[in-house]
Amino acid sequence: MPEDKAPIDPWGSTLPADYETLMREFGIEPMTEEIISAFPSTHRLLRRRVEFGHRDITRILDALKRNGAYAVMSGIKPTGDFHLGTMMTAEEIIFYQSLSDKAVAHYCIADLEALADNGIPLEESHGIAVGNVADLLALGLDARRAYIYKQSEEKLVQRMAFVFSTAVTFNTLEAIYGPKHIKYYFSALIQVGDIMLPQTEEHGGPKPVLVPVGIDQDPHIRLSRDIAKKFKLVPPSAVFHKLTRSLLGEEKMSKRNPMSMMTLSDDPRLAERKIWSALTGGRGTVEEQRRLGGEPEKCVVFELMTNHFIEDDDELRKVYLECKTGARLCGDCKSQLADVVSRFLMRHQERKEGLMDLARSILEGGGWTRKA
Amino acid sequence: MPEDKAPIDPWGSTLPADYETLMREFGIEPMTEEIISAFPSTHRLLRRRVEFGHRDITRILDALKRNGAYAVMSGIKPTGDFHLGTMMTAEEIIFYQSLSDKAVAHYCIADLEALADNGIPLEESHGIAVGNVADLLALGLDARRAYIYKQSEEKLVQRMAFVFSTAVTFNTLEAIYGPKHIKYYFSALIQVGDIMLPQTEEHGGPKPVLVPVGIDQDPHIRLSRDIAKKFKLVPPSAVFHKLTRSLLGEEKMSKRNPMSMMTLSDDPRLAERKIWSALTGGRGTVEEQRRLGGEPEKCVVFELMTNHFIEDDDELRKVYLECKTGARLCGDCKSQLADVVSRFLMRHQERKEGLMDLARSILEGGGWTRKA
Repeated sequence: MPEDKAPIDPWGSTLPADYETLMREFGIEPMTEEIISAFPSTHRLLRRRVEFGHRDITRILDALKRNGAYAVMSGIKPTGDFHLGTMMTAEEIIFYQSLSDKAVAHYCIADLEALADNGIPLEESHGIAVGNVADLLALGLDARRAYIYKQSEEKLVQRMAFVFSTAVTFNTLEAIYGPKHIKYYFSALIQVGDIMLPQTEEHGGPKPVLVPVGIDQDPHIRLSRDIAKKFKLVPPSAVFHKLTRSLLGEEKMSKRNPMSMMTLSDDPRLAERKIWSALTGGRGTVEEQRRLGGEPEKCVVFELMTNHFIEDDDELRKVYLECKTGARLCGDCKSQLADVVSRFLMRHQERKEGLMDLARSILEGGGWTRKA
Repeated sequence: MPEDKAPIDPWGSTLPADYETLMREFGIEPMTEEIISAFPSTHRLLRRRVEFGHRDITRILDALKRNGAYAVMSGIKPTGDFHLGTMMTAEEIIFYQSLSDKAVAHYCIADLEALADNGIPLEESHGIAVGNVADLLALGLDARRAYIYKQSEEKLVQRMAFVFSTAVTFNTLEAIYGPKHIKYYFSALIQVGDIMLPQTEEHGGPKPVLVPVGIDQDPHIRLSRDIAKKFKLVPPSAVFHKLTRSLLGEEKMSKRNPMSMMTLSDDPRLAERKIWSALTGGRGTVEEQRRLGGEPEKCVVFELMTNHFIEDDDELRKVYLECKTGARLCGDCKSQLADVVSRFLMRHQERKEGLMDLARSILEGGGWTRKA
């Protein structure tokens, strides 16, 4: 069974060396042109194969075709500000929610995990979560078709985790996650609860659910699909995106190293400085770079342009070609990106400020905007 | 470490062969005359050593001495009517609550376990729980100093279970419970959450907690005490009672075999019939019994008298001696007990009927009577 291969670690912080091997090993399907063009609209993350793979995405395409209900779900551990990695997931939720007025977005604030893993008290994570939700709204989530909830307040998730535990063996958990401390298995079952929440009676019953994730989260997807079959639920679909690297290039971007990541709350001038010190695909000297061209494949600055900051495909292609041919130096790219990013951050932060009250009222009012 | 011995099984249904061996192995203290007389009042279960052992009961005695707060906690899986086994725990809660106006009783309706283990939907177990709570009130619980809650509605318990999971290893769980399916470990952590609930900030913070249990539940007590130390909580105390045998004598009384148990909802005439067919310590023939005397130690009818239905110690002693000397036959005992039991059931059922609305309002009103 392909689902029993050596596990990848959703709690780790290393970048997978080779996405294609992982896909083959775990049976993740490639994101093909055919699939991409079947969506009613498009997104740079799809077009540029930042979303490179999926499981069962056709369930979502089918729902779109027959104008049926589906959900898109994700979540965040409220330990700090949105960074570029969490922003990518947010953008995906927003995109897949925007495709149909039958689509509902579910967003989980994993405050229990922040408590258990990071020792952050619930009162503290609540404040962080308000900011996270305001970020999500500022990026464009339609709050009228979204259920945003804190794990600590959502009894249905806890209940499901407990019920699901009756149908899972240690063998399955070890095959999927490797041998781990029990807290990780506990946490995994709660995350399966989060993924299944859109299919509860209280949320309209069984339906396709799309979970946009980094490939490191695939174990949760596989466990969820396994459990869904046992409880007559629709096995959730997933789209997989490449992990956002740290600005310094080595690890996936995470909250563990604030100096190597960019948050949406960074002062725009600080963000510019971070870009100026980011890893590039530049050569040792200007002369060499003019002669050999740069290496955009290795360049974090080019990755930021690709993933987040250059919308126009032609413009991105131009940057790529100019780099490859040595017509453009790293300073040109950094200057261009710094400019785009600082303008983006200023606009975003202003928009976010105006949405803090709505974010608070959603979190304190039971998750649905219409009840707030 | 005595806590690492071959485990006893809280989910099994066999009677422990030898209480004394178990006590020695697991470090349970005997219930001594000195302890019993230190309580401000007395109870037949204590005097007759039906409560035969304890852990750390001196914490409760100390609290009583200095008029400090303490809690007494237990719970029920809402799968059916109160039977004599669950009634015993109820009587203990009521007794230990009655000793001080600083004592609060916590009573957990383990509806998540009824769902996960027995497949009973929450709506169904709610109805059963209302009856269980009415039984508890009819037996004498002071609802003004009681917190009665459903697991499925109590977020604090879920939260603690998750946090506690971070501090427990598989080794510990296996040492305490033996190798088990993960659902049992999950359930164990939730039960530890239940046991710790009285010590949360929301319930007044750390304090002594007394848990009256059958010895088969000791693993939960040991796990709780282990975890309490890690989270700066007071290790809970326990009193252990002998398990109530089935009317037919072989197993512990449980809801699994309705024909061998007596419930508080039994029609009094049915209860009488059950008593007439119960196991006794009688001999093969009347002649033999007159000559050798009966064996009250083996007799379920005598056990029912001892545990539940004869309050007066002298009267019980008289029954015992008459049996041992052959002056009394099994029919005499059965007739006497049937009479007491049917009168008890009639009175109890009438009282319970009048408390159903209060029970419902407690369960639907957030657990505290004063809020109902």
